[in-house]
Amino acid sequence: MLHLASVANWLSNDRKGHTLPRGLYVSDEAFAFDTQVMLKSVWLYACTVAHVKNAGDYFVFELAGNSIIILRGRDNEVRAFWNSCRHRGAKICLDQSGRAPRLMCPYHQWTYGLDGKLLAARSMAEDFDKADHGLNPVALENVGGLIFICLSDNPPPIDRVKADIVDQIAVYDLEKLKVAVQDDYIEDANWKLVMENNRECYHCDVGHPELISVLGTTGFGRDAPADDYLETKRAEWQALGIDHDVIEFPDGWWHRVARLALANGAVTQSIDGKLACQKLIGPFKVPETSSLSVWTQPNSWHHFCCDHVVTFSLTPIGPEKTLLRTSWLVHEDAVEGVDYNPDHLAALWRATNVQDGHFSMVNHQGIANDGYVQGPYAVEENLVEDFKDFYVDRAKAALKAETI
Amino acid sequence: MLHLASVANWLSNDRKGHTLPRGLYVSDEAFAFDTQVMLKSVWLYACTVAHVKNAGDYFVFELAGNSIIILRGRDNEVRAFWNSCRHRGAKICLDQSGRAPRLMCPYHQWTYGLDGKLLAARSMAEDFDKADHGLNPVALENVGGLIFICLSDNPPPIDRVKADIVDQIAVYDLEKLKVAVQDDYIEDANWKLVMENNRECYHCDVGHPELISVLGTTGFGRDAPADDYLETKRAEWQALGIDHDVIEFPDGWWHRVARLALANGAVTQSIDGKLACQKLIGPFKVPETSSLSVWTQPNSWHHFCCDHVVTFSLTPIGPEKTLLRTSWLVHEDAVEGVDYNPDHLAALWRATNVQDGHFSMVNHQGIANDGYVQGPYAVEENLVEDFKDFYVDRAKAALKAETI
Amino acid sequence: MLHLASVANWLSNDRKGHTLPRGLYVSDEAFAFDTQVMLKSVWLYACTVAHVKNAGDYFVFELAGNSIIILRGRDNEVRAFWNSCRHRGAKICLDQSGRAPRLMCPYHQWTYGLDGKLLAARSMAEDFDKADHGLNPVALENVGGLIFICLSDNPPPIDRVKADIVDQIAVYDLEKLKVAVQDDYIEDANWKLVMENNRECYHCDVGHPELISVLGTTGFGRDAPADDYLETKRAEWQALGIDHDVIEFPDGWWHRVARLALANGAVTQSIDGKLACQKLIGPFKVPETSSLSVWTQPNSWHHFCCDHVVTFSLTPIGPEKTLLRTSWLVHEDAVEGVDYNPDHLAALWRATNVQDGHFSMVNHQGIANDGYVQGPYAVEENLVEDFKDFYVDRAKAALKAETI
Repeated sequence: MLHLASVANWLSNDRKGHTLPRGLYVSDEAFAFDTQVMLKSVWLYACTVAHVKNAGDYFVFELAGNSIIILRGRDNEVRAFWNSCRHRGAKICLDQSGRAPRLMCPYHQWTYGLDGKLLAARSMAEDFDKADHGLNPVALENVGGLIFICLSDNPPPIDRVKADIVDQIAVYDLEKLKVAVQDDYIEDANWKLVMENNRECYHCDVGHPELISVLGTTGFGRDAPADDYLETKRAEWQALGIDHDVIEFPDGWWHRVARLALANGAVTQSIDGKLACQKLIGPFKVPETSSLSVWTQPNSWHHFCCDHVVTFSLTPIGPEKTLLRTSWLVHEDAVEGVDYNPDHLAALWRATNVQDGHFSMVNHQGIANDGYVQGPYAVEENLVEDFKDFYVDRAKAALKAETI
Repeated sequence: MLHLASVANWLSNDRKGHTLPRGLYVSDEAFAFDTQVMLKSVWLYACTVAHVKNAGDYFVFELAGNSIIILRGRDNEVRAFWNSCRHRGAKICLDQSGRAPRLMCPYHQWTYGLDGKLLAARSMAEDFDKADHGLNPVALENVGGLIFICLSDNPPPIDRVKADIVDQIAVYDLEKLKVAVQDDYIEDANWKLVMENNRECYHCDVGHPELISVLGTTGFGRDAPADDYLETKRAEWQALGIDHDVIEFPDGWWHRVARLALANGAVTQSIDGKLACQKLIGPFKVPETSSLSVWTQPNSWHHFCCDHVVTFSLTPIGPEKTLLRTSWLVHEDAVEGVDYNPDHLAALWRATNVQDGHFSMVNHQGIANDGYVQGPYAVEENLVEDFKDFYVDRAKAALKAETI
Repeated sequence: MLHLASVANWLSNDRKGHTLPRGLYVSDEAFAFDTQVMLKSVWLYACTVAHVKNAGDYFVFELAGNSIIILRGRDNEVRAFWNSCRHRGAKICLDQSGRAPRLMCPYHQWTYGLDGKLLAARSMAEDFDKADHGLNPVALENVGGLIFICLSDNPPPIDRVKADIVDQIAVYDLEKLKVAVQDDYIEDANWKLVMENNRECYHCDVGHPELISVLGTTGFGRDAPADDYLETKRAEWQALGIDHDVIEFPDGWWHRVARLALANGAVTQSIDGKLACQKLIGPFKVPETSSLSVWTQPNSWHHFCCDHVVTFSLTPIGPEKTLLRTSWLVHEDAVEGVDYNPDHLAALWRATNVQDGHFSMVNHQGIANDGYVQGPYAVEENLVEDFKDFYVDRAKAALKAETI
């Protein structure tokens, strides 16, 4: 049973330029609302096409008790299905990812094709029709290789996000990459605090020494790339087909795309700024001193370097438990131990994730106090405010739709 | 506080021949309703008389925070009491089972007789009357040695269940048996899914190789014993006084009793089909190639072999936690290490229980999905449907009684 | 969302001279009410001045998700603040206690003075005023060195408690003591049961052999000190300025103060009755065979011996989890290993706490039963009844204030 009255009340206490009311961050009611209403009304980033590289590859995306199978068919299409057998509801794919020629329920061996159709079911009544019992589909969009799903039967538009992002990441050709490392890390904080933490670098100088050594003090919404840097690089980027204006949550849409300068001579987002994989990707023939970042509301961000791509998704597990999943992708022909070392590849963001996990936990614990007061965002926390405004806007709309 | 509106709504969405709506399996509300209302309106199997073999023997039966002492008195009667001192409410019997000449509360030493009467209490006011402060009784019925309790002050009828079951199991004389092994196994699934799992062998061929080797592909509601088998055995069973027709949940009652053929030459439900105890029980002088099975709604099943009896009870612990308790009983004169080996005795059902625990967990996890759809039972899942119909029927009646 | 209807109903079922209705002890609703309403309407004991001995010393007091910093300023005043940064709400003091020249938020380095004023915050908008963003204060009273806080904006009176307690404990001069040992022990019981357990010695004879060997069978509300003992000691106590009548929850107030005789020649509350610290405290020049006890509703008790002080606070963590914090204080000049041995100092109450933890758990488990019946307090449980009456009285008042 959802207690929407409390959530409505908290949403009405949103304060411009300030953090959310306590209940929206820490209560069971808000968690139920977020996972059963709000997050079902929007598109969620799940994984990349590289996570389901071949026909029969599946990737299980979970959100607060929900489990969705993302599956590549024999026709190369990527589809999504609820991970629940149409017989007695059992979970079909028990591993987080894998490969199978068909999907077979482990309980009574009902068997489905890679397109979700029911192929076999024993001992059913005469009037049973297999055509009525295929896997239950979930809306899915392939955005230049980034897979988004929506748990609503009536998904909102995604066309402009798709056009803008594809325009800039197509050159990286995610179908030609493979997943080299995947880290699943659970943070002890509400998912919205993990998002807020990601949207600012106000905490970076002290909090992320490794990250700052590679990214400098600009970037991540803190400042635009310096003008003289842009001046120098523009011709080069034009030649590579990667010269674009910054896109920043235009007209109420939910994506930001920006090319950012790296610092201290770094050519990628690695712990020492040196190439993390010797096989370059995308249009690059030589190492490049910038990276492309894509942020989408409400649950992801991605960095495209000249030698690898790193993507982040987050999903709520409980009111104060959030799964942060980080995947590092390299060229499909790159050889582990020769072209790249997984530990070196992952070291920078691994360290940064742990630091952010600590900050988000401390943030959550402080907000859980009765004495918490909604506080003002700093000037350079403007992207945090963008996220918060997105959340409040979509939450109010979802609440209204739910209670009509 | 009970949220009965959601439960009422889910019950109204019951679909003939299909699994229950999601909320009834996975929600906190349904768990509260089941344990505080529905399961208190019916008789629950708790243990056998062999579990409290001698005067002063007690056996603690627990259900979702409730704790009931089942106790044999000096008059040989078995009685049940709430496990809560009449002084300040402390739990009296802390162990799951044991023996005591009197029951003494560990907190302030209030002392009760084996009939529940308060014998001693220090420092009480002058108007305190010990006669008003005996242990709070719980309804109990001894059904041919199977102990059933009911947590209601107004238990439903049990007479026909008692008559039908006693008629068939009296020959096994449970008072002459002893508990050789007891296993407590916690499954990560709602109790109703553990029950559904027990009521069909649709999953046995693939899921239970050990069990099938002894029971074959018939039995357990899948098929009746073969006609020619019955023909051959009838005279023999008549001589032993064990020739009965199958009883199958007659007239809305909640018991099934059937004698089933074993397979592959097995003479008992053991891992190799060989005798699990050399001292035969009941009317048997030589090993017998059938076993008698008793199923009761909503929480038990029992198998009576020629050399041992195995009983199963299940009790909800949480929305997705269920205790399955399995007890193996042998002749009271059987000597461990000589007549029986406990590991051999328990091996078949121990393996089967673990397999079923996995299936029930997978079933629960899949149903927890928003994308779960109520699915159709197979033809050979008719006893699952019987259980589900019993549940819905009794749940609706209990809900009505609660909300009047 | 608070479910106050159930709580109101349970409170109306309070029975004179009997334990509370089950729901008030074991339900989530009562826990939410206690921690969010009832316990916020009263003064709570937190620690002593010795826990924050020097400027910059802080001590974090937590209650069901709330975290309060108790902090000594440069002006020697002890103040309390909510442990939540005024920026984005992060927890500021992460350790249970410590020392800092200023309080700096670990997330974005907002910095506060020891008086709670905001000193530094980077990158804020032009209209941001630091004066509006000091730490959020919590009401605090220093009662002769015992620190009480109240989480309400409108704390109830404390003047008579303060006057009566200061009158008797001022001679012990807590500012001259230091914390030698602090034990945090979590009991698996509702906080009210832990309190009830503390308010009677009906369970001591059997339950606390070590304690009884030092305190005898009198004391702790069981009996007043024997008349002949008082006769003998009075002149001696008058000379020391410690001769007072017993104060016992006068006129609806919430404190009890009594000097009690020790037993078997004991001169302090130690495991062997021998001095636990060679440096005497307060007015004592020679060991003394009595100790002064202070009880306050709803969450503390304290014993003042001639060589040390031991204080107890308890705070709810969950419906059946309670933190019992025990602190042993000795003379600030006492040297560990020379004047006192921490293990010897703590041994008596450490053993007693573990025994009480077991009793409270057993009490909680028994009450969680449906079959629990509100039971009668014994004659010598009169202080338990005082606590219960205080709870019901304050709970009803707080409920009324909340629902107006």
